[in-house]
Amino acid sequence: MALIVQKYGGTSVANVERIKNVAARIKEHWQQGNKMVVVVSARSGVTNELISRAKAIHQSPDEREMDMLLAVGEQETIALLSMALHAIGVPACSRTGGQAGIHTDALHTRARISRITGGDLPARLEEGKVVIVAGFQGISENQEITTLGRGGSDLTAIAVAASIKADQCQIYTDVEGVFTADPRIVLNARKLNELSYEEMLELASSGSKVMQARSVEFAQKYGVPFEVRSSFNNKPGTIVKALTKTMEDAVVSGVALDRSQTRVTISDIPDSAEAIASIFNVLGDAGLSVDMILKNLGTKGRANMTFSDNTDQLERTEKVLSEALKRLGSGTVRATGEFAKLSIVGVGMISHPGVAGILFDALASVGVNSELITTSEIKISVAVNPDKADEAVRAVHNAFKLHEIVPLG
Amino acid sequence: MALIVQKYGGTSVANVERIKNVAARIKEHWQQGNKMVVVVSARSGVTNELISRAKAIHQSPDEREMDMLLAVGEQETIALLSMALHAIGVPACSRTGGQAGIHTDALHTRARISRITGGDLPARLEEGKVVIVAGFQGISENQEITTLGRGGSDLTAIAVAASIKADQCQIYTDVEGVFTADPRIVLNARKLNELSYEEMLELASSGSKVMQARSVEFAQKYGVPFEVRSSFNNKPGTIVKALTKTMEDAVVSGVALDRSQTRVTISDIPDSAEAIASIFNVLGDAGLSVDMILKNLGTKGRANMTFSDNTDQLERTEKVLSEALKRLGSGTVRATGEFAKLSIVGVGMISHPGVAGILFDALASVGVNSELITTSEIKISVAVNPDKADEAVRAVHNAFKLHEIVPLG
Repeated sequence: MALIVQKYGGTSVANVERIKNVAARIKEHWQQGNKMVVVVSARSGVTNELISRAKAIHQSPDEREMDMLLAVGEQETIALLSMALHAIGVPACSRTGGQAGIHTDALHTRARISRITGGDLPARLEEGKVVIVAGFQGISENQEITTLGRGGSDLTAIAVAASIKADQCQIYTDVEGVFTADPRIVLNARKLNELSYEEMLELASSGSKVMQARSVEFAQKYGVPFEVRSSFNNKPGTIVKALTKTMEDAVVSGVALDRSQTRVTISDIPDSAEAIASIFNVLGDAGLSVDMILKNLGTKGRANMTFSDNTDQLERTEKVLSEALKRLGSGTVRATGEFAKLSIVGVGMISHPGVAGILFDALASVGVNSELITTSEIKISVAVNPDKADEAVRAVHNAFKLHEIVPLG
Repeated sequence: MALIVQKYGGTSVANVERIKNVAARIKEHWQQGNKMVVVVSARSGVTNELISRAKAIHQSPDEREMDMLLAVGEQETIALLSMALHAIGVPACSRTGGQAGIHTDALHTRARISRITGGDLPARLEEGKVVIVAGFQGISENQEITTLGRGGSDLTAIAVAASIKADQCQIYTDVEGVFTADPRIVLNARKLNELSYEEMLELASSGSKVMQARSVEFAQKYGVPFEVRSSFNNKPGTIVKALTKTMEDAVVSGVALDRSQTRVTISDIPDSAEAIASIFNVLGDAGLSVDMILKNLGTKGRANMTFSDNTDQLERTEKVLSEALKRLGSGTVRATGEFAKLSIVGVGMISHPGVAGILFDALASVGVNSELITTSEIKISVAVNPDKADEAVRAVHNAFKLHEIVPLG
């Protein structure tokens, strides 16, 4: 008998039939004598519908009102899922984010969790009830409804698990876990049994769509192990937890690919630390993160700089940079082509200096030569030609024999 | 400059375009320097959609979960209407029922308002903001979301008006006000400029669809005058308020018609006060109200009884009565035909004894003879043949010259 937190995303509760399926799955765990808290998202499509209605009324809707609007999506699901559990004889009750004690700051549409009281969850669990909690939402100190932004429901699940000291936190999704590479690209990609928070974080910021980095950070901060697993079958997924000694035996855990990168080049700026700092400061102030930076010395004390940018934030980046260069008195900014970012991630890389050599050999074998490279202690990312990206991922996956390694521990 | 509460129903906010229209109308009042609180319902259709989803999951959904579910309808509207006001330059903010201080008991799906604190409405109004309040919903002492049942949004508007001591409470609807009769039946029916709470109550319980009786009762109890007016034009509507001397000059204010009545006959029961009391007690306990009761003495100490019942509660009435008669050991119950209930209402009737005579002459003139009659101090109701109902309403309207009378005051 364990205390289990489960999280189901919008696809899993998209309609009445799927809600009934989720209820049946919850019942299985509950019948085994487990205490259960279930966090759910809005039915898939609902949030987009609400946003499009808001946009038809106001170009840039007030963020507080946006939260008031979007919170209804999850509130609908928790009520319907409770009813579905009642229908199959499982006692259950629903809780909004506020009722579940998810307290946040007042940064509407992207609120951060400030404290988690757990509300009356322990008392309801003690009664044998399954408690259904609305993901993605919280309440501010002024009793305002807030939402947590992208990946918010995962965050709710991990926060609730932390607050009630759950034994397990299961994130149900449409994939079976975290793989050594995207199985649609690498046919013999292997599901990882376990992974450290650090690796999961690097994967999250390297194009793996499984989870948002903030949820992983939160889990790491509060020491909440969690399992990513499929809502379509009963196979064990990938457990993400604190680094253990045995994990280090796997040099590289996985290869990630982020296709939506654009190369941005700034030309003819003063070659001074102040000028370059001012450019990164305006980007940071605007909440725009860039990486893979390359600086080239130009002539006569002028410099050029190239960095990678997420394609979906490109418009804002160019706007912000143009204004900064105007203030600087010189320089031009232009996008210089899309590319894909290939990353290898693994905690074992720290102590294995030969990793970069294997990586570049593998890339060379398929004719990929990259000028943009960035490294951290447990990650190496390189920019690759989008047309060659899949081939490159397969070559790298093969070079590190990722299909073979059986992680220990 | 006045403090105005306005209420818009689901039809008025059914879609993005109509929400914009309502915003424009609010702006007109706000620009005149008025302080404004606006109560809104769910977009028409939304509540039914939610109910049908719930029913597809559970035959009789838990009432607490039903409230959790249904409250999202109004929460969507308040956010969208606030955005629509922002879009045309009007400062506005939304409040759920709970945030607006609508406290209720814990009778989910039909909660009664227990106290109204008004939340932070006075502070927001002082800042010049239009406050948009979710109708139909409140919060219980346990911080549970509750809903008020049918006509709940009107009730919210009147409760808010009472709590903030509004100067005006305007109920916007799809009719222009309260008429001397249904204008679709009586072409020269006249809109009443004002009406007493008592008359409005009798009309509400006599088939006029304008408002639920409970909202009128609440307004009367707290002395909140309100105006029923059209959301499609700017004409003044009907003001409902405490009885004034001048009102009494109108003997009859209006003729109402309720088409959905069924005659129910109970035969062969003991002719004792106890037996008859027991029958009405079971109906009362089941929340079924009947009126227009007629008792006929049968033979050998047995009695028959006929009364009128709302057709839409007929099935439950028959079920409850059959069980009661089984316990009584004798008697049969059967529905003995549908009919329409025609009522004349007017505070002046108290002091004008000739009213009944005029009524029955008018009915006789169109060949209507009724066996079921019921009277109160300010109302006379008669059962009429449904096929003759319209003709009867026109004859009665004409007999009392309702198209001519100009109410004083």
